[in-house]
Amino acid sequence: MTTAPRVLVVYASQKGYTERAASAVADGARSAGALVEVCPADQAVAAQVQSCDALVLGTPIHMGSADWRMKRFIDVVCGPLWAPGTMAGRVGGVFATGGGFGSAGGGVELCLLGLLSNLVQLGILPVPLPRKAPGFARGGTPWGPYCRTQRETQQYLRHDELELEACIAHGANVARVAARLGRMEL
Amino acid sequence: MTTAPRVLVVYASQKGYTERAASAVADGARSAGALVEVCPADQAVAAQVQSCDALVLGTPIHMGSADWRMKRFIDVVCGPLWAPGTMAGRVGGVFATGGGFGSAGGGVELCLLGLLSNLVQLGILPVPLPRKAPGFARGGTPWGPYCRTQRETQQYLRHDELELEACIAHGANVARVAARLGRMEL
Amino acid sequence: MTTAPRVLVVYASQKGYTERAASAVADGARSAGALVEVCPADQAVAAQVQSCDALVLGTPIHMGSADWRMKRFIDVVCGPLWAPGTMAGRVGGVFATGGGFGSAGGGVELCLLGLLSNLVQLGILPVPLPRKAPGFARGGTPWGPYCRTQRETQQYLRHDELELEACIAHGANVARVAARLGRMEL
Amino acid sequence: MTTAPRVLVVYASQKGYTERAASAVADGARSAGALVEVCPADQAVAAQVQSCDALVLGTPIHMGSADWRMKRFIDVVCGPLWAPGTMAGRVGGVFATGGGFGSAGGGVELCLLGLLSNLVQLGILPVPLPRKAPGFARGGTPWGPYCRTQRETQQYLRHDELELEACIAHGANVARVAARLGRMEL
Repeated sequence: MTTAPRVLVVYASQKGYTERAASAVADGARSAGALVEVCPADQAVAAQVQSCDALVLGTPIHMGSADWRMKRFIDVVCGPLWAPGTMAGRVGGVFATGGGFGSAGGGVELCLLGLLSNLVQLGILPVPLPRKAPGFARGGTPWGPYCRTQRETQQYLRHDELELEACIAHGANVARVAARLGRMEL
Repeated sequence: MTTAPRVLVVYASQKGYTERAASAVADGARSAGALVEVCPADQAVAAQVQSCDALVLGTPIHMGSADWRMKRFIDVVCGPLWAPGTMAGRVGGVFATGGGFGSAGGGVELCLLGLLSNLVQLGILPVPLPRKAPGFARGGTPWGPYCRTQRETQQYLRHDELELEACIAHGANVARVAARLGRMEL
Repeated sequence: MTTAPRVLVVYASQKGYTERAASAVADGARSAGALVEVCPADQAVAAQVQSCDALVLGTPIHMGSADWRMKRFIDVVCGPLWAPGTMAGRVGGVFATGGGFGSAGGGVELCLLGLLSNLVQLGILPVPLPRKAPGFARGGTPWGPYCRTQRETQQYLRHDELELEACIAHGANVARVAARLGRMEL
Repeated sequence: MTTAPRVLVVYASQKGYTERAASAVADGARSAGALVEVCPADQAVAAQVQSCDALVLGTPIHMGSADWRMKRFIDVVCGPLWAPGTMAGRVGGVFATGGGFGSAGGGVELCLLGLLSNLVQLGILPVPLPRKAPGFARGGTPWGPYCRTQRETQQYLRHDELELEACIAHGANVARVAARLGRMEL
């Protein structure tokens, strides 16, 4: 792909944490040369999805799965793209935020896997988060970044937070894979 | 438990398939002596959830996970019951309907596991579907019944369908476990 | 069930962490009145499985799933019990240990869900870990206890560790549910 | 990548079904220009893994997860490649075979997700199976091909079987993505 890849970041957010993480993913994608659009799940439309080369989904973890607004976006906006196979061969990624009660991710794995299931149903290639990515040690999963929102220091909103580093790295990786792959015919 | 267990069946349905399956689950629970309430996800309220001994969730599979209306019910109605631990030690079950493109369940496993994740976050004990349950061979998973909605015969809406047998058996099992366990202090 | 329930704890362990957690689960089950047997996965035999009322599986997390010795136990010892439905209606539980790199559980969810999938294939009812269980805040998941083996203090082997409290509570809950349910005909 | 990508197909097989599927995946990869090696899980060594551009794993479904020999390969051969991040940025794929009792895949989703979890722990990019892939309607999942081994006709071993078409398509897709991506620095 000789032109810049188009990355669409769709997120649900109640208190601003996931919006902040979405901004970090977007920053990372831009740093890798992508044209980036960031959009709340309740405002995203099919035209945006169809015109992107990479689709990244982010959500707070509610009861072990994605926010219902994100699921409504999947059902209503993305669902009709399943039968025609519009998105097959494009690139995707996921991230989540949560309090993390239990210090084992608070359901982050199934939450991210649920979103990944939605993406692969569309034929999208998921980009994982390698263990050496900056910030992984603080809140990483191989499926994508996980931002803890309740730390003792409550400094999670500062842009230099380690979790946001993982989001930045993830956004850059997604953009780089999209640039290299283009839209493959799968 | 000397009194009849109260079973609440909450479902999302667009075309009536899941509503039909919910009725079959309810019939099964009643046949085992339960007091049963059946309620669409967009009408269910917290008081219903709090007063039941067993909570059964049913959904169509959309893009590999539950209908967004079911997720909204989880987030908005059930979410506030997480912190106080209100539902811990009660009993639960799940079921799903879907076209099943690919003849491998069309994402039914992650769909059911997503709902089960929501239930176990609340401390609810999930009742599995044993392989010898009536109708299992036609559309069963160990996590709960799975009703195919697109068969050649299109006879799926007849009450004597085999998939509905699995729903009836599942409802009865949930009611029987709830009757035996009562509301345990876990 | 008027007699004491029989609880079988099967574990895989390389460095002794999971063995330690298995002992804590066993202690918990005994404290609730159960007759408990603890057995390494590579020594457990079918007769032990068939005679227990509750089966608890514990494993270190390797690459996001259970130790291969645990899987061999499942395939070779438990597999033949699937077709006859021998274990349907009994009770089960799972737990895991791991370094937890990424501070999101290091793959604990899919690891525990893989083991739970093995149990529900047999028709076993899984006992979840309620969020109010002692030790949950330190290493709990709703699917079962998760013991971090790499903390700064390296005090994880002390029996009074908080993670072990979750194991003790889980063992007690499994035993109590087994005592109340008996072996149900499902 | 100007040279042919190297694809390694590692499989576990008891009765020859998965070996047959592995051959079909290999055929597909070769048809897309790859250099392909096919190896049983109990013979594969680290040097093979380290030198491939794409790693494809195939297994029979036993009790809802991968054959223990496949897990031993993951633990013993692949495990040591986790810490150094050797495989990050390479490409991967998964497939499974099974009787499919219940006609909902017989646990194929969690089985494939368990293997995918192993791959993404290594930083490997999973290639999904698009719904328009040949053979998908007969035995596809978005995570990879699923070959039913118990059909009425028992013709599953014929090379022209539809399920094998999905394996061939998957092998070709994995090879094409590997050729396009090369070994990315992630």
